[in-house]
Amino acid sequence: MPAYAIYNTPHKDFNLLHWGHFDAPDAYFALKVGEQTMAFVSELEYDRCRAVGTFDNVFLWSDIRKELKKRFRSGSFWQNFFQFLKDTYAVERFVVPDDFPAAIYAEISRQIPVAFDASFFEGQRAIKTDTDLSEIREACTLTADVLKEAIRILRESAVEEGVLYFEDEILTSERLRAMMEVYCLERGGIADGTIVACGRDGAYPHCVGSGALRAGELIVIDVFPYLKTSHFYGDMTRTVVKGHATSEQKNIYQAVLDCQTALLEQLRPDVLTSDLQTFALRFFEQRGYGLKRTEFGTEGFIHSVGHGIGLDIHEYPSVGSKPIALKPGMVITVEPGLYFPTVGGVRIEDDVLITNDGCEILTSCDKTLELS
Amino acid sequence: MPAYAIYNTPHKDFNLLHWGHFDAPDAYFALKVGEQTMAFVSELEYDRCRAVGTFDNVFLWSDIRKELKKRFRSGSFWQNFFQFLKDTYAVERFVVPDDFPAAIYAEISRQIPVAFDASFFEGQRAIKTDTDLSEIREACTLTADVLKEAIRILRESAVEEGVLYFEDEILTSERLRAMMEVYCLERGGIADGTIVACGRDGAYPHCVGSGALRAGELIVIDVFPYLKTSHFYGDMTRTVVKGHATSEQKNIYQAVLDCQTALLEQLRPDVLTSDLQTFALRFFEQRGYGLKRTEFGTEGFIHSVGHGIGLDIHEYPSVGSKPIALKPGMVITVEPGLYFPTVGGVRIEDDVLITNDGCEILTSCDKTLELS
Repeated sequence: MPAYAIYNTPHKDFNLLHWGHFDAPDAYFALKVGEQTMAFVSELEYDRCRAVGTFDNVFLWSDIRKELKKRFRSGSFWQNFFQFLKDTYAVERFVVPDDFPAAIYAEISRQIPVAFDASFFEGQRAIKTDTDLSEIREACTLTADVLKEAIRILRESAVEEGVLYFEDEILTSERLRAMMEVYCLERGGIADGTIVACGRDGAYPHCVGSGALRAGELIVIDVFPYLKTSHFYGDMTRTVVKGHATSEQKNIYQAVLDCQTALLEQLRPDVLTSDLQTFALRFFEQRGYGLKRTEFGTEGFIHSVGHGIGLDIHEYPSVGSKPIALKPGMVITVEPGLYFPTVGGVRIEDDVLITNDGCEILTSCDKTLELS
Repeated sequence: MPAYAIYNTPHKDFNLLHWGHFDAPDAYFALKVGEQTMAFVSELEYDRCRAVGTFDNVFLWSDIRKELKKRFRSGSFWQNFFQFLKDTYAVERFVVPDDFPAAIYAEISRQIPVAFDASFFEGQRAIKTDTDLSEIREACTLTADVLKEAIRILRESAVEEGVLYFEDEILTSERLRAMMEVYCLERGGIADGTIVACGRDGAYPHCVGSGALRAGELIVIDVFPYLKTSHFYGDMTRTVVKGHATSEQKNIYQAVLDCQTALLEQLRPDVLTSDLQTFALRFFEQRGYGLKRTEFGTEGFIHSVGHGIGLDIHEYPSVGSKPIALKPGMVITVEPGLYFPTVGGVRIEDDVLITNDGCEILTSCDKTLELS
C-alpha cells in the first residue's frame, strides 16, 4: 500500500490542516495509509492535537525516538523513522508532495522508496466538501460585504481639487485599506494586503497602492480575507472611478467586464482552464488590447484568468496556460484584467463554484464603474 | 563559486523577503552568487519587482524559457535552468535550504551539484541589522500596547457570579481577542490566533481559548502581531487572575516569574541555548514542578524556553534542547511556562536583544498576577 506523507506547518501546506483539522505554528509530520491518518507531534502539541484534531492516531516524537533507539543501531533519524513506518504499516512506497523538504528526501531516498504525485496532493482539496463549501460561502459573503463597505465610503466621499475626502479627512489608499480591514476583522475575517490602487498604482496587479485617492482615475479594489475560525478564503475585485470616467477608461472597463461575462458563461465541467486563458487573451487582442512590452512596462492582460481558492488563497487548479479540466465542486476565481503603465489597471474578480451544468457565482457586488 | 538558491513564496521562506524586499503571493526563484542577488519572476510581477524590490537583477520566466529552448534540445525545464545558471555564473555548486522543493531536487541532483547548508540559511537573518532592529522595536512596542489594552479591559471589567463583564456584556475569550486584534490593526499590526486562555484552556500552550472569562482563574494572554508595513513580529505573554489568586496559583506564577528573571540574567553572547533549556527544566523540578505524564495529560514545562523572532514568528535560533551559541544582535523570546491539565497554565514571555554584554528587553509591560 502507498503511504502519503507531509512534513510541514499547516499554513505552508493546507492539506495538513484539511487532513486532521489541527492548526499549529510549527511543522509536524502526518501520514495517510488507506483511510487512516496519523500525526507525529511534540510534547507541546500532543494533548491539544488529540483533543481538537481529527487524526485517527497521534504520536509523540519523544516516544518515537525511544522506539527507534531500540530498533536501530545506525542510520539517521529520518532514515530510521521512515524504515519504522515502512515496517509498521507495510508501506510499499511513500508518496510526498513536490515541496516536501529536499534535505529529508535526499537523506532517505536511497533506502526508502519515495515518489512524487502532485496530482494526488493537488487533488486533495480541489473538489470542495459540503463543509468546505459552507465555509467558502460565508467567506465570500464577508468578502462582498467588505467590498460594498469600500464602495459606500467612496460614494460618500467628497471631491476637492481632484482629491477624495471622507469625513473631512483626505481619503488615501492606506486609510481606505485600514477601514476595510478593520471592518472585516470586526466581522471575523482577516484581510491583509488589501489592494486599493489608484491610477498608475493599478498597473501592477499586486501593488497595494498608496497616497491620496483621486477623482477621475481608475481605482482597483481587491480584497481577499480568510475566516478566522476556519481559514477559508474569499477573493474579489472591483474597479471604480469616482466622478466621471474618460472614454478610454470606459472602453477598457467594458472590455474587462465583457470578457468576464463571456468567461462566466463558458464555465462548466470538462472545460479546460487553458482554453479560458486563450479565450481571454484573444478577446482582449480583438478589442485592441494585446499584450505588449513598452518602454514604461508591460501592458495588456498580464496574469492568468484565475486560481482555485479554499483554505489557501491560491490553490489548485490554476486557471492559466496549463490545461486542467474543471470539475463540479471546484471553486475558482474569474478575474480578467487589463493593465497600462501610464494609465492604471482594471480588474473584475468573482469566485464561482463549478456545478453539474455551469457555475454559481458566490460573490455578489455591483459592477458600476462610475461612482457619483 | 557556490550559488545560493531559494524557490518559494516569501511568506514560506522569509529569507526571500530579506534578500530582495519583494513580497508576492506566489513562489518565485532567487539566486545569490557572491554579493549579487537575482530574482526570476512571471510577467505579472516583473515590473513591480524591478520597481520596489532590491534584487540586483530581475529576469522574466518567459525570456528564460526562450533562452533555454535555444540552448537545450533535451532535458526538463529545471535541469536546463540549473545548467544555464551553472554555465552563466560559473557556479561550482548550488546550495539550497533544507525545505527546498524535493521534486525539483530529485530532478536536478544527478546532473547538477546541489548541497544543503542549513546553517547558511538559518544564519541569514539571525543577526539583526539596524533596519531589522528598528522594525522589531516598533513591533515590540505595538505588542506591549496591545497587551496593556487587554489588561486595562480586564481591570475595568466587573465580576458577577464569578464571570467577567465589560461594558455590561459578558467578556469572553473571543470578545477580548477580537478587541485586542482590532486595537492592533488600527495601529498597523496584524495579530491572528491571539491566545486568551482561561482556566483549563491555558493548559494547552497553543489553545486560543473560548467562552466566558472567569474570576479567580489563571488567564494566559499571548499576542504576537506583525507590522503590516515590514512584517516584523513581536511576541509577548502575560498571565493574570481577575480578583484573588489561590496560593497554588501564586506559587506556580512565582516559579515562572523567578525562572524568567533567572533566565534573563543569564543571557549574553556565547551562552548555549541548551543550557538555558536545561536550567529551566531543573529550576522547575526544584520548585516541585517536574515534567510528568498524568491521566489528564502532561504537566510541567512542556515547551522550549523560546525562539528567534523577526520576519517570521518562529525563526532561528530555537532556544531549546539543541545547543546554539547566542550572538550579539540575535533577538529571541524568553517564555518559561508551567501547565497543569486540571488547573491551567502560566506563561510569561518577553522579547530580548542579545547585546555585547548581556541583553536588552524589548517588550515592557507590568507583571502583576492579580488584577483588582
